[in-house]
Amino acid sequence: MTLLSPSRRLRRTAFSEGVEAAGVKAYTVYNHMLLPTVFRSVEEDYHHLKQAVQVWDVACERQVELRGPDAGRLAQLLTPRDLRGMLPGQCYYVPIVDETGGMLNDPVAVKLADDRWWISIADSDLLYWIKGLAHGYRLDVLVDEPDVSPLAVQGPRADDLMAAVFGDKVRDIRFFRFAPFDFQGRSMVVARSGYSKQGGFEIYVEGEDMGMPLWNALMEAGRSMDVYAGCPNLIERIESGLLSYGNDMTDDNTPHECGLGRFCNTQTAIGCIGRDALLRVANEGPIKQIRAMEIEGPVVPACDRWWPLKDGEKAVGRVSSAAWSPDFKTNVAIAMVRMTHWDDGTELTVETPTGLRPAKVRENFWA
Amino acid sequence: MTLLSPSRRLRRTAFSEGVEAAGVKAYTVYNHMLLPTVFRSVEEDYHHLKQAVQVWDVACERQVELRGPDAGRLAQLLTPRDLRGMLPGQCYYVPIVDETGGMLNDPVAVKLADDRWWISIADSDLLYWIKGLAHGYRLDVLVDEPDVSPLAVQGPRADDLMAAVFGDKVRDIRFFRFAPFDFQGRSMVVARSGYSKQGGFEIYVEGEDMGMPLWNALMEAGRSMDVYAGCPNLIERIESGLLSYGNDMTDDNTPHECGLGRFCNTQTAIGCIGRDALLRVANEGPIKQIRAMEIEGPVVPACDRWWPLKDGEKAVGRVSSAAWSPDFKTNVAIAMVRMTHWDDGTELTVETPTGLRPAKVRENFWA
Repeated sequence: MTLLSPSRRLRRTAFSEGVEAAGVKAYTVYNHMLLPTVFRSVEEDYHHLKQAVQVWDVACERQVELRGPDAGRLAQLLTPRDLRGMLPGQCYYVPIVDETGGMLNDPVAVKLADDRWWISIADSDLLYWIKGLAHGYRLDVLVDEPDVSPLAVQGPRADDLMAAVFGDKVRDIRFFRFAPFDFQGRSMVVARSGYSKQGGFEIYVEGEDMGMPLWNALMEAGRSMDVYAGCPNLIERIESGLLSYGNDMTDDNTPHECGLGRFCNTQTAIGCIGRDALLRVANEGPIKQIRAMEIEGPVVPACDRWWPLKDGEKAVGRVSSAAWSPDFKTNVAIAMVRMTHWDDGTELTVETPTGLRPAKVRENFWA
Repeated sequence: MTLLSPSRRLRRTAFSEGVEAAGVKAYTVYNHMLLPTVFRSVEEDYHHLKQAVQVWDVACERQVELRGPDAGRLAQLLTPRDLRGMLPGQCYYVPIVDETGGMLNDPVAVKLADDRWWISIADSDLLYWIKGLAHGYRLDVLVDEPDVSPLAVQGPRADDLMAAVFGDKVRDIRFFRFAPFDFQGRSMVVARSGYSKQGGFEIYVEGEDMGMPLWNALMEAGRSMDVYAGCPNLIERIESGLLSYGNDMTDDNTPHECGLGRFCNTQTAIGCIGRDALLRVANEGPIKQIRAMEIEGPVVPACDRWWPLKDGEKAVGRVSSAAWSPDFKTNVAIAMVRMTHWDDGTELTVETPTGLRPAKVRENFWA
């Protein structure tokens, strides 16, 4: 790994002090902000995440706030998911598409009220797209990045840790629902969600000044639960089939190619900008799609570029994320594969920077 | 410095092989792409840039292409700079503002033809803003990121190196003009421009496959000229007063606050979205503005966050970029300062992470 040069442009977060005190070893950059990637080691962090509980600085999941009479209309313009049945207190995973049906982001929409939404974004300046549309359509809505920093609590002991800080009522929050909770006299949105399959919560911390008090309270309350600082874990997210915008998909891909067709109600999502472009693919299905992939051999190198997938000489797809899984004793990977070769068990060859490897398509992810 | 975790999301460039072979030591991330920051050391790179010639991988200056009958109208929507007199073959530095007059980016616009423009962007997904507007205004224009990778040749011997590869006619290009030049049978736009004050060119390499052939040709031709791989240099850019979007300005700032009022023709830039919002500040001037700043004492730490500027207890601004200058034997810095304290010679105090330092406002940058 090379070094990362610090600058103000790579924004620190409301939790950076805590992250540094916990001995962060590496970062990535996400929405112009520092996102920790390693504390003890990727493998140690992985085992700990599956056994205990971690506090994650995911402030880089910046929010785009929509506020005003046209907020709901604007939200529906953005996504082929039908939002009509969505109630305040719900979170929806919403593929965001442009007029060609290409993915611009895959955020979680948080409906605070009919006229107030947060869009919790993946790594692209979705704020710019939404502002441009709001202006072009002359909508009656304010679009801005509020001072909100998500903090995630993830792992099998997440409920216990959260209950110790927010009270037992936090256990009642259902998956992808949220409710306001009090912390030191300030109200915070707490959702049952997060970028792992180990269970947990995301706390939307309003006001940067509340970042470190909450971080410290969680660390303090979790002492007996083996709490530690953590971060989205490369291995665990691949095992769990959690896609990463910019890694596994870009604006070249439709939601259907990304296996997100179940989040598209293309017939009924009236108003969605990409609806017309998606009708055909929604009916016929895509010609390539995301698949879980097993790569044989020893630990793969870092997947810092597409690795071509071949059937003999024929290009049939590419791997976008890969890592060695200690639990499944194989290299786990995410790939985009053409329909001629995407069936469970199809044997292919992958070109890694350290040579060719046999690889096999799997029907499902590992977790 | 901490480590940077590799992933496909942090895109490699058409020149990454060359950059790695030259021994890159550190990166930053810019437009979701790797941008080298250090080769030998920031200071060695600095001296070499001022004495010889460097080849810079600035592929991260991604292009937004506007193509179609409404391309010119769309370009004028984006900026308060009057584009009516701009001819094909010219480059303009164009502040881009939203409807509130806040800066969204500060790119260079390259007018290829009346109906074809490239916007060579700083670090924000300006593509999203432009696409959103084009769609909202129903303009007859295609907006996309083309396969174009800028490569810069910078330093006092840049003309000689470029002439060795592209022929002597390249010397005739005037500042912020461009012309097409042939390289191995492919046409490339070559502009006299670049993110240093040492003189030089930017080559807009169309087609990723041409990246390494051109890199290698420049390295080969420059052997006798002490050519080396380089990158935008923190010290040199501060001395030269070259602003960095995300560091020295954000969407909270108007162009006038950034000292870019001379690029705003607010009266005549009819169509510009931010025009109305900027009329008042264009007449009255801003109440805070970018200033060059000298910071006393030994070498300052890395400026990875705003450093508050104080007059006694009173907050009067903040420093956004700072570095030790070997040539000027002082810490050079860029700050946003309130008008009550922005006069040449005003003495202030700056709060750095390693303690308070005396600082002084300067009328001009160093170079």
